[in-house]
Amino acid sequence: MDLTRPLFVLFGDSITEQSFFPGGWGVALANSYSRKADVIIRGYGGYNTRWALFLLDLIFPQGNAGAPSVVTIFFGANDAAILGRTSERQHVPVEEYKENLRKIVHHLKKCSPTMLVILITPPPVDEDGRNEYARSLYGEKARELPERTNEMAGIYAKHCVELAKELNLSFVDLWSHMQETADWQKKFLRDGLHLTPEGNAFVYKEVISILHSSGLTPDTMPFDFPHHLEIDGKDPAKAFTARK
Amino acid sequence: MDLTRPLFVLFGDSITEQSFFPGGWGVALANSYSRKADVIIRGYGGYNTRWALFLLDLIFPQGNAGAPSVVTIFFGANDAAILGRTSERQHVPVEEYKENLRKIVHHLKKCSPTMLVILITPPPVDEDGRNEYARSLYGEKARELPERTNEMAGIYAKHCVELAKELNLSFVDLWSHMQETADWQKKFLRDGLHLTPEGNAFVYKEVISILHSSGLTPDTMPFDFPHHLEIDGKDPAKAFTARK
Repeated sequence: MDLTRPLFVLFGDSITEQSFFPGGWGVALANSYSRKADVIIRGYGGYNTRWALFLLDLIFPQGNAGAPSVVTIFFGANDAAILGRTSERQHVPVEEYKENLRKIVHHLKKCSPTMLVILITPPPVDEDGRNEYARSLYGEKARELPERTNEMAGIYAKHCVELAKELNLSFVDLWSHMQETADWQKKFLRDGLHLTPEGNAFVYKEVISILHSSGLTPDTMPFDFPHHLEIDGKDPAKAFTARK
Repeated sequence: MDLTRPLFVLFGDSITEQSFFPGGWGVALANSYSRKADVIIRGYGGYNTRWALFLLDLIFPQGNAGAPSVVTIFFGANDAAILGRTSERQHVPVEEYKENLRKIVHHLKKCSPTMLVILITPPPVDEDGRNEYARSLYGEKARELPERTNEMAGIYAKHCVELAKELNLSFVDLWSHMQETADWQKKFLRDGLHLTPEGNAFVYKEVISILHSSGLTPDTMPFDFPHHLEIDGKDPAKAFTARK
């Protein structure tokens, strides 16, 4: 089916996959663009950028009509998993992470040069929160050393921001911005990594602010079809033919 | 872009449009089918079935690849607005309502004979709730007589169910089922017509129960791409080529 509205695709890892949970940032976006744009999720829990590359041709085929108007790219939380610790199979070296992001952006821009691509850095990591979470799952068997650190996530975030600046892309420096709020560890993160409702609201505000400044303001975007008050009860066809 | 998952479309009036509000039945469906199916909303506040017919060719073009797997059709609340009262421009006679629904179903089945089409009746109407809502908006100027009645909504619901049985379609008799719960007026409806969070949960449960009994159970549907635990860190390509 052809979509009658601009399409926004949220592409990323579990933090994107979970954005349609109740209170999620994806839900909030979909609701803000009600009758103006469609929002769909391409979030893959546990994925890093290396694995994301395998999806590109399938999710975003070249030469295909109806390319998305907006794509958010939100990876890095898994790439930044630390070598030699429990999540090392997800680790991707930071230079490769940056090059993988570049490949994703190039692919998308080939799909549609006018596409608004928004890079989002990984969020900060609350190491105490990660440890508590591990203990809640594994008790005394939980690993001693954190499998992700805030410092490491910051290095990946820095590379993400660098790439966005190099390519002149919009970006959300989530790692830095979240840490400007007191008690970000518990306020925004529920297990040291994934978002609380307030963390989701934070991401939503950052993303919609970029959409607004790019001219994609819901209030000024057209409805796909007439508002019901524009329809003349005695001659409904008029409202529909007038828009063709 | 091609969708890599089955597509579910929710087609209807404001009760569908608002299904992506926080706590909405559309959000709950989208979340249940996370990584299994896409859920998009085609809800048009204030629309009746007569106006919906103008949208069919545009939303659901014939001969177009990628027809939805599932479409819910949820109209009637506006068609049942009472002649001679404040919402009469939205009124559609009940026989025409039934024939319009038939046209919508035929159109969809021509798009894809295997599409699961689910008819949903209008919800019951809490006339006191409607009156309170009108007074909250207009004070003493509010209309004396309700513009919608529960009895009238019931007549439309009955015709919707009749059509579903005639055409051997799945259906949700929302009008009847909601009234089986004590205090349905306040429990399920927030202004006498639109849904509370509990009303949304009710619609969600009814719809997902039909999806389950039609074999569309999220647990048994495939992921569009491998779960990250299926990916060999040393040979990631394997997991992706194996699925082609």
